[in-house]
Amino acid sequence: MTSPFVAGPSVRIPGSPNGPLAGLTFAAKDLFDVAGHRTGGGNPDWARQNPAPTRHAWAVQRLLDAGATLIGKTITDEVSLGILGENPFDGTPLNPMAPDRVPGGSSSGSASAVAQRLCDTALGTDTGGSVRVPASFCGLYGIRPTHGRLDLTGMLPQAPSSDTSGWFARDATTFARVSEVMLGEPISVTLPTRLVVAVDTFGFADAGTAAALQPLVQALAALMKDVRDDLLAPSGLTAWARAQRTLQPWEAWQTFKPWLERDNPRLQYSVARNLARAAAIPESEREWAALVRSEARARMTWLLPPGTILCMPTTPFPAPLKGQSLPALEPVRGRILGLAAHGGLTGVPQVSVPGAKVDGLPVGLSIVGGHGSDAALVAVARALEAAR
Amino acid sequence: MTSPFVAGPSVRIPGSPNGPLAGLTFAAKDLFDVAGHRTGGGNPDWARQNPAPTRHAWAVQRLLDAGATLIGKTITDEVSLGILGENPFDGTPLNPMAPDRVPGGSSSGSASAVAQRLCDTALGTDTGGSVRVPASFCGLYGIRPTHGRLDLTGMLPQAPSSDTSGWFARDATTFARVSEVMLGEPISVTLPTRLVVAVDTFGFADAGTAAALQPLVQALAALMKDVRDDLLAPSGLTAWARAQRTLQPWEAWQTFKPWLERDNPRLQYSVARNLARAAAIPESEREWAALVRSEARARMTWLLPPGTILCMPTTPFPAPLKGQSLPALEPVRGRILGLAAHGGLTGVPQVSVPGAKVDGLPVGLSIVGGHGSDAALVAVARALEAAR
Repeated sequence: MTSPFVAGPSVRIPGSPNGPLAGLTFAAKDLFDVAGHRTGGGNPDWARQNPAPTRHAWAVQRLLDAGATLIGKTITDEVSLGILGENPFDGTPLNPMAPDRVPGGSSSGSASAVAQRLCDTALGTDTGGSVRVPASFCGLYGIRPTHGRLDLTGMLPQAPSSDTSGWFARDATTFARVSEVMLGEPISVTLPTRLVVAVDTFGFADAGTAAALQPLVQALAALMKDVRDDLLAPSGLTAWARAQRTLQPWEAWQTFKPWLERDNPRLQYSVARNLARAAAIPESEREWAALVRSEARARMTWLLPPGTILCMPTTPFPAPLKGQSLPALEPVRGRILGLAAHGGLTGVPQVSVPGAKVDGLPVGLSIVGGHGSDAALVAVARALEAAR
Repeated sequence: MTSPFVAGPSVRIPGSPNGPLAGLTFAAKDLFDVAGHRTGGGNPDWARQNPAPTRHAWAVQRLLDAGATLIGKTITDEVSLGILGENPFDGTPLNPMAPDRVPGGSSSGSASAVAQRLCDTALGTDTGGSVRVPASFCGLYGIRPTHGRLDLTGMLPQAPSSDTSGWFARDATTFARVSEVMLGEPISVTLPTRLVVAVDTFGFADAGTAAALQPLVQALAALMKDVRDDLLAPSGLTAWARAQRTLQPWEAWQTFKPWLERDNPRLQYSVARNLARAAAIPESEREWAALVRSEARARMTWLLPPGTILCMPTTPFPAPLKGQSLPALEPVRGRILGLAAHGGLTGVPQVSVPGAKVDGLPVGLSIVGGHGSDAALVAVARALEAAR
C-alpha cells in the first residue's frame, strides 16, 4: 500500500475564504482531531476506543481559519511510536523520492502526501524526530517548533515533555507562509548572524552524507557574519540519545499504560516490545537521564544565544530500504536517534532544509536555534533557498 | 464474535468409510496442517508467511484414516500463546456453558466447537495447559498425552520440550473411542488400583472449587483399592510453575524469534510483551529452572509407579469473565499455571474429566499418571462416568 491517507470516509473541509493561506491545501496526521472523524492514531484498537471528536485540534483549526483547505488525514506510525514509517495496519506511505525506501516516521503520511504533491503542506508531530526525519528522507522542509510554544489541544500525546506539532512543505515560500500562520509571528528578512557548524554531528553521519551536505553548509555560511566549528554535545551525542531514549519511552509508557492494560490491543511486535521494555526502566536510569537533560539544556543555552544558529545533518544517512529485519534496523534506529535526540531532550526548535542528495536519495540539513527562534530559522531556510 | 471456526473457505474432508470412528465428526485447531489450507496459527501475519501445506498433519490424517470427518479449523490463541482464549484478531469463541466467560485457551475454538455440539471431537495442543484448561472451563473431557508419545508432524510448535497434541469430547465413550485411535492402544477395562489425592493442589484451588470436586473424588476413590493423600509438589507448586514459566517462554522465544525479527508482526500486547520478557530471561534463571524440572520429574516417577494415579483440580476455579484488564488477569493466569505447570515440566499424561460445577459453571477433575499411562487414564475416566 502506498497511499499516504488513512482508509475510510474522505475528509475535506474548506478553509476560510479570505485568509493568508487561501488556495493552499493541507493534510493532518491522524493524531490530530478533525471534528466528526475518529482520530485513528495509526492503530485499529486505538481508533475504536474513542468517539469521533466534536472539535478540530488547535493546529487544524488554525490552518482552516487562515484559509487552507483540509484534504485528508494521513497515516502515522502506531500512536506515533516509530521513526521509519512502516505501519503494518495502515501500510507504508510511498516515499516518492525513493520508492524502495521508507518515508520516515512517525509523520510518514504527511511527508508522503506533500512529497507526492497531493497537498501543499501537512501537519505532523515531532516527539523524538517524527517531523525532522521524514522531512530529510522525503526531501522536504519540516519544522519541529520550540517545545511548549504551540497549543497541542486535540493532538494525541505521546511524551508530553517532548511532544511538539510541526509541518512540511516542498518550497521555502510555502513553508514560510504556513509558518507565519502557525507561529503567529512574521518571518523577518533580518537573519541571525552567527553560525555554529556542529562538527560532532557531521562526524556522526555517514561520510557520504556529510560530504553531500557541504554545499548547503557553504551556502548557509555565506549568509552569516561569523562561522565557527563547535561540538553540539561535548559529553557525547550517544549520552544524550541514551537519556532521551530513557525519558521519552518512560513517559510514553505512562501515557499508554491505561490503554494497554485495559484493552490489551494489537500492536506491531517492536512497538509492544519497546513499551514493555519502557515499563521496566529503573528509577536510577531515569534519574541519570534527567541530569543529562539538565546539562544538555544548559549546553543549548550557552551554545545558541540570540543571533546564533547551528547546523547539522538531520539524519546520518538517506532513507533506509523498506522491509528490513528488526536486527538490521536496530543500529539504523539508534543512529537516527543519535542525531535527533537533542530536540526532545532540550526543546529547541529545528528546521530541516532539503537540497542535498546521496546516490540520488534526499537528505536534509538542519538549522537549530535557541528557544523561541522558530521564525528566525524559517527565515534562514527561505534565504538559503533564495541564495542557491 | 462467537464462532469457534476460523474465517475463510470452509474445510470439510470426509473420513475413510469403514474406520472405527466412522460417523464421527471432528475439528482441528488452526495449528494443525490441513492440506490445501493455510495454517493460520491465530495470527494474520503468521498465516501469511507460509504457503498452504500439501500434507495433513499426522493427527489429522490419523483421525481421517480412522473414519472421522473433518468439518472445520478452529480458533486458537496467537501461535498458541495464551491460556484464556481471547484472540483479538479471530475473536473469542463462545463458551456455551458460560457465555459471559472465556472458553479457555489456547485450544479455545476446539473446546468451544465440541461444547456447542458442532462436532464430536476436536484436536488441540497442550504445551502449558492449552487442552486441560479449556476442557475444565467448557465442561469437557480433554487429554494431554505423555510428552513425546504422539507424532507432532504438521503441528505448529511452540516449546518442543513441552508441546503435545490432545483432543476433547463431551462423553467418555466417544473420548475412549478417539483415544484408542490416537494412542494406538486399546482402552482396557482393567484399572489402576492406587489413587493419590494431591492435597496441595486442592488447597491451591478456590475452596468452592475444591468442595465442588469432592463428589467426583469420592466416586474415583470408590474405583480404587488404595487411596492416600500426598503432595504433588513438596517444594511448592509455585516453584514448579516458576520453572515452567522460565523454560517454556524461553523456548517459545527461540521458536518465534526468527519470525518476530524478520516480519515484525502484529500481536496482542500481552503476547508481544511476554515474548519480549522471555528474550531477557537470564541463563542463571534457566539453569535453576532446569534443576527444578529434574527434581519434578523425579518426584513424578516416585509418586506415580505403574498402577498408581493422582487426582487434582484441573483449574483452581471455573472460567473467568471475558474482557478483563491485564492487571486483573495477571494473578488469574498465575493461579491457572500453578495447577497446570507440572504437565509441561514433567511430560506426564493427564485427563480432565467434567462433572462438577461451581455456581453453575463447569470445572474439571484431573487424573494424572506416570509416563505412558495415557490409556489407563482414559479407562479411569470411562469407568468414572459409568459409575456415576
